[in-house]
Amino acid sequence: MDERRVKSIGTETLEDLAVGATVLGTGGGGDPYLGKLMARQAIEQHGPVRLVGPEELPTDGLVLPVAMMGAPTVLVEKIPNGAELEKVVRAVENRLGRDAAALMSVEAGGINSTIPIVAAAELGLPLLDADGMGRAFPEIPQCSMSVRGVSATPMALADEKGNLGLIETVDNDWTERLSRTATVAMGGSSIIALYPMSVEEAAGAVIPETMSRAVDIGGTIRAARMQGEDALEALLDLASGRLLFRGKVVDVLRRTVEGFARGTARIEGLGDDAGSSLELEFQNEHLVALRDGEPVASVPDLITVLDADARTPVTTEGIVYGQRVEVVGLPCAPIWREPEALKVVGPGYFGYPFGYSPLEEVRT
Amino acid sequence: MDERRVKSIGTETLEDLAVGATVLGTGGGGDPYLGKLMARQAIEQHGPVRLVGPEELPTDGLVLPVAMMGAPTVLVEKIPNGAELEKVVRAVENRLGRDAAALMSVEAGGINSTIPIVAAAELGLPLLDADGMGRAFPEIPQCSMSVRGVSATPMALADEKGNLGLIETVDNDWTERLSRTATVAMGGSSIIALYPMSVEEAAGAVIPETMSRAVDIGGTIRAARMQGEDALEALLDLASGRLLFRGKVVDVLRRTVEGFARGTARIEGLGDDAGSSLELEFQNEHLVALRDGEPVASVPDLITVLDADARTPVTTEGIVYGQRVEVVGLPCAPIWREPEALKVVGPGYFGYPFGYSPLEEVRT
Repeated sequence: MDERRVKSIGTETLEDLAVGATVLGTGGGGDPYLGKLMARQAIEQHGPVRLVGPEELPTDGLVLPVAMMGAPTVLVEKIPNGAELEKVVRAVENRLGRDAAALMSVEAGGINSTIPIVAAAELGLPLLDADGMGRAFPEIPQCSMSVRGVSATPMALADEKGNLGLIETVDNDWTERLSRTATVAMGGSSIIALYPMSVEEAAGAVIPETMSRAVDIGGTIRAARMQGEDALEALLDLASGRLLFRGKVVDVLRRTVEGFARGTARIEGLGDDAGSSLELEFQNEHLVALRDGEPVASVPDLITVLDADARTPVTTEGIVYGQRVEVVGLPCAPIWREPEALKVVGPGYFGYPFGYSPLEEVRT
Repeated sequence: MDERRVKSIGTETLEDLAVGATVLGTGGGGDPYLGKLMARQAIEQHGPVRLVGPEELPTDGLVLPVAMMGAPTVLVEKIPNGAELEKVVRAVENRLGRDAAALMSVEAGGINSTIPIVAAAELGLPLLDADGMGRAFPEIPQCSMSVRGVSATPMALADEKGNLGLIETVDNDWTERLSRTATVAMGGSSIIALYPMSVEEAAGAVIPETMSRAVDIGGTIRAARMQGEDALEALLDLASGRLLFRGKVVDVLRRTVEGFARGTARIEGLGDDAGSSLELEFQNEHLVALRDGEPVASVPDLITVLDADARTPVTTEGIVYGQRVEVVGLPCAPIWREPEALKVVGPGYFGYPFGYSPLEEVRT
């Protein structure tokens, strides 16, 4: 894959990245449009962001992921003012007494793929070509770094009003609990810096080349559309994905509870799927796809909704009544299929009464 | 008053302090017995704690108040392990890059008068003879330091499990909001260090000599009891107080909500008060005393309940059905009667539809 790796993110690469990250975001990660605007402005002002592999950084350098935390439904209405990103990075740097060598994305997904670009551009730092999920998940311990034993703290949180928190916890479940309640108290969203680690630790604990992969996915969809080819087929080929369902959205239920956007969307089949219906359940991200009541895909595999006309990925807050959609399943990063990892990202963790079946093995 | 000032707190002084602080605690501040045990143990292990005035400290020295936060009903069942006190002090010291010259009590009240003694003994630091309320109040901005413009942050919080938080906020209302939700998430109580200030700032912003006053009140009650004199009269004389009601507790309603112990107690009159009833409403501390529906005392003045037989102060969680009690009103520290201060500690702040009348001016 190395010959494909993207070396820097400028304003053009950003367009592909935003589309690809929204595909990987599996419905979550926040509004890609807002994140893209912020990143474009930062790149125009400070220049392109260098994307590096761990081998290009000193082994003892500090890698610091940054992100936005909270319900995507809130993020849309609560635009960060920019100062928070520097504030959370400096807070963790000061606590550890060392400067960051590179920033990183915690998850692939609309705004959480672009927020680290904003921070890297503003602070003049490179971005590690990686993330902690290879997709988006709703909770902090659902990170490859956590599975590999890296502590999420010291973690900093800031809001757009100027409040700052720094937490150090006994484990990553406590990090989730304390940072989630703080985020709710801050008004439903916050800017965070967490999982500080050395480059050496990162090399063994992150999902590699996620940023390049997002650019690749976005670029493939764009190229297919421009050349009048089938963008869906191109995506499925590139990402070893599978078309789960085609249909029309007939019902959407969405509510913001405990700092999460939860809900369900029901889709009635069209074409080959006529007569069937698909139900999507989400908590920020899509968790399961049930076809006529039977699971056809579930976490940790990726479930992505595409607008059938535009062939653009749709986030959970973008799903609307009457929309014609294609629901796609993509296999997750290999780490998530390890038994220990499935305990924190499998359907059982989210309260479903069935076990995980890899996407490729489900019969439909 | 200077000739009376207590110079150090040993195990004997501690007994008087605990009783006096519970009188000033006006029903709140947590179980005085538990706090006394912890302080006694710390003094036995590390020696008496030196009590100092601001004039005995370098003007640029750091004064750091420490306390327990949360509902007293929870504190009783969630004993701190001792490590938290050092942890919160060090967290604020590290953030500011300087060591504390003295610790301080935030409020007078059972456990929050003794927790700073534990910390001072363990860390070998003197204690400023002062507090931030001259009584106990339920919320962080209800502090003389806040009225005088001192920021409550950087503030540190720790729980008995080993979790630590450090917050920096835009104002003290945000400090209250963020630290309260963190405390609830930590299980209902936390150990805190807050309102870091220079000795010079402290001199103009604290309630002076509160620790000495508590020892004095406790000593006066003890002496009167030992000499077979009227301990109630002695207390009222010393503190310019007033007997509000005598009677028997006939109803207690208590619930722990949003990190506070809230409730009401109804007392039926005996003796001169026969035929009347008094209702006490509390939020950790007593807020108002209503005699036959009419307010006879309210925040910020102190409302204290004494067990009529033992003449010992009773906290809100110690009030039980059938108990014979004497309800006493004591005038608050002068700062609380300033118009700006009344906005955050007067009856209106707590949602009552009447204004504040100084205790001395209410006709009964």
